[in-house]
Amino acid sequence: MTRPALTLHPDRALPAEPGVRALARELLASTQDLPIVSMHGHVEADLLLADAPFPDPAALLVTPDHYLLRLLVSQGVSLDALGVPRRDGAPVEADGREIWRRVASHWHVLRGTPTRFWLEHELVEVLGVTVRPSVATADETYDQMVEALAKPQTRPRALFERFAIELLATTDDATASLDAHAALAGAGLPGRVVPTFRPDGLLDAGAPGWGERVARLGELTGVVVRDARTLVDALAVRRGQFVAQGALAADHGMRTLRTERLPADEADRLVVAALRAAEAGRALDAPAAGALAGHLLFEMARLSCEDGLVMQLHPGVLRGYDTRVAGLRGPDVGYDIPVAAEFVHALRPVLEAFGHHPRFRLVAFTVDEDVYSRELAPLAGVFPALRLGAPWWFLDSPDAMRRFRESVTDTAGFYNTTGFVDDTRAFCSIPARHDLARRVDAGFLARLVAEHRLDLDEAHETAVDLAYRLPLAAYARP
Amino acid sequence: MTRPALTLHPDRALPAEPGVRALARELLASTQDLPIVSMHGHVEADLLLADAPFPDPAALLVTPDHYLLRLLVSQGVSLDALGVPRRDGAPVEADGREIWRRVASHWHVLRGTPTRFWLEHELVEVLGVTVRPSVATADETYDQMVEALAKPQTRPRALFERFAIELLATTDDATASLDAHAALAGAGLPGRVVPTFRPDGLLDAGAPGWGERVARLGELTGVVVRDARTLVDALAVRRGQFVAQGALAADHGMRTLRTERLPADEADRLVVAALRAAEAGRALDAPAAGALAGHLLFEMARLSCEDGLVMQLHPGVLRGYDTRVAGLRGPDVGYDIPVAAEFVHALRPVLEAFGHHPRFRLVAFTVDEDVYSRELAPLAGVFPALRLGAPWWFLDSPDAMRRFRESVTDTAGFYNTTGFVDDTRAFCSIPARHDLARRVDAGFLARLVAEHRLDLDEAHETAVDLAYRLPLAAYARP
Amino acid sequence: MTRPALTLHPDRALPAEPGVRALARELLASTQDLPIVSMHGHVEADLLLADAPFPDPAALLVTPDHYLLRLLVSQGVSLDALGVPRRDGAPVEADGREIWRRVASHWHVLRGTPTRFWLEHELVEVLGVTVRPSVATADETYDQMVEALAKPQTRPRALFERFAIELLATTDDATASLDAHAALAGAGLPGRVVPTFRPDGLLDAGAPGWGERVARLGELTGVVVRDARTLVDALAVRRGQFVAQGALAADHGMRTLRTERLPADEADRLVVAALRAAEAGRALDAPAAGALAGHLLFEMARLSCEDGLVMQLHPGVLRGYDTRVAGLRGPDVGYDIPVAAEFVHALRPVLEAFGHHPRFRLVAFTVDEDVYSRELAPLAGVFPALRLGAPWWFLDSPDAMRRFRESVTDTAGFYNTTGFVDDTRAFCSIPARHDLARRVDAGFLARLVAEHRLDLDEAHETAVDLAYRLPLAAYARP
Repeated sequence: MTRPALTLHPDRALPAEPGVRALARELLASTQDLPIVSMHGHVEADLLLADAPFPDPAALLVTPDHYLLRLLVSQGVSLDALGVPRRDGAPVEADGREIWRRVASHWHVLRGTPTRFWLEHELVEVLGVTVRPSVATADETYDQMVEALAKPQTRPRALFERFAIELLATTDDATASLDAHAALAGAGLPGRVVPTFRPDGLLDAGAPGWGERVARLGELTGVVVRDARTLVDALAVRRGQFVAQGALAADHGMRTLRTERLPADEADRLVVAALRAAEAGRALDAPAAGALAGHLLFEMARLSCEDGLVMQLHPGVLRGYDTRVAGLRGPDVGYDIPVAAEFVHALRPVLEAFGHHPRFRLVAFTVDEDVYSRELAPLAGVFPALRLGAPWWFLDSPDAMRRFRESVTDTAGFYNTTGFVDDTRAFCSIPARHDLARRVDAGFLARLVAEHRLDLDEAHETAVDLAYRLPLAAYARP
Repeated sequence: MTRPALTLHPDRALPAEPGVRALARELLASTQDLPIVSMHGHVEADLLLADAPFPDPAALLVTPDHYLLRLLVSQGVSLDALGVPRRDGAPVEADGREIWRRVASHWHVLRGTPTRFWLEHELVEVLGVTVRPSVATADETYDQMVEALAKPQTRPRALFERFAIELLATTDDATASLDAHAALAGAGLPGRVVPTFRPDGLLDAGAPGWGERVARLGELTGVVVRDARTLVDALAVRRGQFVAQGALAADHGMRTLRTERLPADEADRLVVAALRAAEAGRALDAPAAGALAGHLLFEMARLSCEDGLVMQLHPGVLRGYDTRVAGLRGPDVGYDIPVAAEFVHALRPVLEAFGHHPRFRLVAFTVDEDVYSRELAPLAGVFPALRLGAPWWFLDSPDAMRRFRESVTDTAGFYNTTGFVDDTRAFCSIPARHDLARRVDAGFLARLVAEHRLDLDEAHETAVDLAYRLPLAAYARP
Repeated sequence: MTRPALTLHPDRALPAEPGVRALARELLASTQDLPIVSMHGHVEADLLLADAPFPDPAALLVTPDHYLLRLLVSQGVSLDALGVPRRDGAPVEADGREIWRRVASHWHVLRGTPTRFWLEHELVEVLGVTVRPSVATADETYDQMVEALAKPQTRPRALFERFAIELLATTDDATASLDAHAALAGAGLPGRVVPTFRPDGLLDAGAPGWGERVARLGELTGVVVRDARTLVDALAVRRGQFVAQGALAADHGMRTLRTERLPADEADRLVVAALRAAEAGRALDAPAAGALAGHLLFEMARLSCEDGLVMQLHPGVLRGYDTRVAGLRGPDVGYDIPVAAEFVHALRPVLEAFGHHPRFRLVAFTVDEDVYSRELAPLAGVFPALRLGAPWWFLDSPDAMRRFRESVTDTAGFYNTTGFVDDTRAFCSIPARHDLARRVDAGFLARLVAEHRLDLDEAHETAVDLAYRLPLAAYARP
């Protein structure tokens, strides 16, 4: 059994052609020491507040990483065997070493994936692993990780400092507590941690539990929700509470994007009907709920013009595709599947109303790359309010990030994109993700320089803009 | 402040890999001195007839270039500040130097775009600019352009000769005057200028003003339009007038492509209803107008078999996306957005009827590249009447043109494409656009040679075909 | 007239960059001597059973190759002139030499296509051709082929051995005779030839002749078909007969993919209605036929869990696009056109029911590459039952195969694909197709290695897996 060393090659993910690579290396050098601006992700503020040592390696690397879980499941490893909790309370694998053995024995399944790229970065940079995981090295690599995790420098706050995070935005349910954020603000971290306002559950009156969530919103804001107007009032107050806690953005996820300007009375009627349905233990029917969600999303855009929260859109994902798995494991464990996206018609009401508003900023993400050159680049290439988010989720890989630049730069340029925005649940993967994005952008810019389509001084400036200045600027509250 | 020189690198837009680049250079040498065949564009015949000196640089380069306007607007520069006229007559920036300063200060926004590539070509080759535009060089570059524009060799006809244009097709509303074309025919230009028949306004009875346009068609043709049959008769006569003036093609733009064979009586009924609606100041309802437009487009295909006008299709663009901007500024100022295209079902009636007709030639363009390998290449790879137009509008950039060749050549080869067809409103950009296309095709062919997928002698012949012979052949009247 | 030599360059279809090419060559060396596993194609068992010498070169290379026919037709060569038989019995060109002259004079039309790549491989490796086909060399090359075909080593079984085919799966209508397969089993071939169960005509009660086909199924199985239950019973019996003859897979083609769980009674009602309609000489109406087809496809998945036949899906092709041509020439002569594909919703019932079943294996092919990163990779990257087939039909070219790997590997890795599966009607092209796929995969893997995204030892193993082990494993009966 071979035991190849695990190292990070300095030229990894840079273009192979020597002339382009030399340029890419030079451009990458401009950005490698920049601080990290992490404008969107799913790390919890509690993690940094508690600053507890990470638990065993499997609980750190495997169980919360839905990219990794999916790939292992796709090869027949069960979620039970990977230690993913069940809602029915039945036991799942609890031995981190056993879980890691399953990962290590499937290491070949990750070949060519960004998951592999990120994991290798974490293993080497954070967790002290020196050999490639495999059946033969599973225990050795596990022991190396256990040893690394025992050290004070791998606690969350120490890593936060080592990662050079200047700004970290979490994602927070609109009715979630902001206490951890408040406590963190005085904790002396070397960078800022801010919440992000995510009201999905309040906008979709067709989903179970909407009534309870609206009631909770009422409590948090002191606004009695009776109709659409008061619901929007309550949302506005709650947004203000997020703003007071430092929030820079709101975030919206939905299967089908839709914005709509309903007459005020019609919107009121729909909310009244939804409240009545909720009292009766039912949800609003789908067509009405869809129209109301479109109306409320439009209202969120309007509020963004007032309170300056950047409006992020993450549409086009069918959540919980396998009903049985979703029922047994809950959300986010790996059965979310993209569907075809449409932005042109869906965003028209908002862009016509606020597309030129000096305080409105809309950031669009997609998991459907078919819309890059057809819809997103033409829209972002004309509306000042719109910026294109970085390639998201299934598209945040070296080749897909390159395709993004190749597809949107023609029509939207670089300066109508946000630069790199990561989207991870895995705290330790943040530097890996930024590192990869900086490499891919350096490679793309290097090619433009090598093809005499861009001067080198401009490429250097653009590299720094994409890595650092553009994300800050895109999310700056006006 | 740095003042980098502005020059055109001889290897610009060629592949970076040295071996492939050497081949590409050699292939490019085969095409660089070929005359320009410009089969589709929006330059006005009047421009060449009048042969007046170009006005100030901004009026030449900025105000008419919707690619450039969009990118500046997307970064918050207003159309007023760029001198784009308003329909309400309110004043807009009139000082060309001021407008140019706004462009120069946003030069970084154009990085990586074909707009930048074309502009640099025009600035260096036509307008004598020697430094890169920037805040620091705005006035200096403006002065250089003013000086260049004062010379006789930058008048339209002198440029026409310098550009080595062999054939230039304009685009002309079906009811527009052909007087300028008639006058130009005797003006001794070193190349041909021909009109193109564009009847969009006559085929869409759902658009305001249809009745007036049909009345005008009646006057121009002496045909009394009473029903579908007489409307088609009038269109046939008008096509004949275009043919007599040298026209080689008809051109059709629409949001949704549709062709349909209606029974003659049903078509007649729809036209009668449309005429009545027009008299009453109304337009035909959308479903009826859509069916009628599909029928009339089918009829245009039938007429093409008779009069030999090549049928060009430019579908899939939602015009005037921002209603307020479109209302204030009129068409073509930058808020047209692509939507998903569909060709397979839409073209079936026409292809079944005339797809093998020896005198029928259909040229399809798309701004939705998702249909390249799925729809367009399979259709063009079997129907002799169909040729694929060059990448259009949002897709006429180095990377998108490369993707076009990579996506359609497998199934359609090179000889079911038209070779390069530009589509510009900016007279001075014509050589830049052909230059870029020749470079991209040279790069693509060079890669095939380097990968031993094509012999070098064949690549040379193909390069010349794509640049010159295929466009001529695709639009040759049989 | 030049007479360039026709040779196969050892580096053909490998990447141009010298460093990547060197790696690709090394990886290719790992796979070039592997046997061929051909899990899906349209070669007839009769061909090998009869082992007759191939007829003239045109009948071997031209008339049965719909890729080649399409490209020649697209340039105005008629199917009559290419010797394609007509259903009306009217004479078509019968002189193979004359047909070949037409091909040779259009050789330039094939530039850049995979058809050219495969043909060159066959001409050089099997047919002894030494100069590039052209008007000037048409007769010379024809004579070379005639000479080669007269030799015993170009008979089907000799080629089967020379091609090193380990396993060849044919495609067989569900009601077709398996006699040739039975006879072949004892014929002493050096590799296995197995049938594949294709029941399209039995699942679509909306197509003419369904009643006769079901009656024939009844005869073959001894099951009286009265309703959906008995129809599925009969299909199960027939599947068992295929299994007994060595079949490893079922294969399903349809224009629009759909799977559906109908209540048993509703399904029965639909079959009863279809049987009655058939008796009356009619077909089931389209909505009912669509629902029934979705139900029966679901049932085929259920049976796969029982009998282990791998379920292959080839959806998204509109067959017989030109009604007149299809009427005159029958199926498969070149007017099939892809339409937009959708897998996410269409496969949900089957994946929810059997996506984790240990004996279920689904292999999805597509001619719509827009779904690679959006739908197919996310589904295959989580459901253990699903594997992605190799790029199919219009997508089995060097650039399209590269795009496949670039688009799906991020999310699905290599090990959720089947490796290479060809799909040819042309027996002599089988090695060419595997050779090309091995070259493209070697090039892709070489780039990953050169970009330090994969270690070289892993790339070697993956190359062998893609060429040999994965196709065997994907179609292994559990």
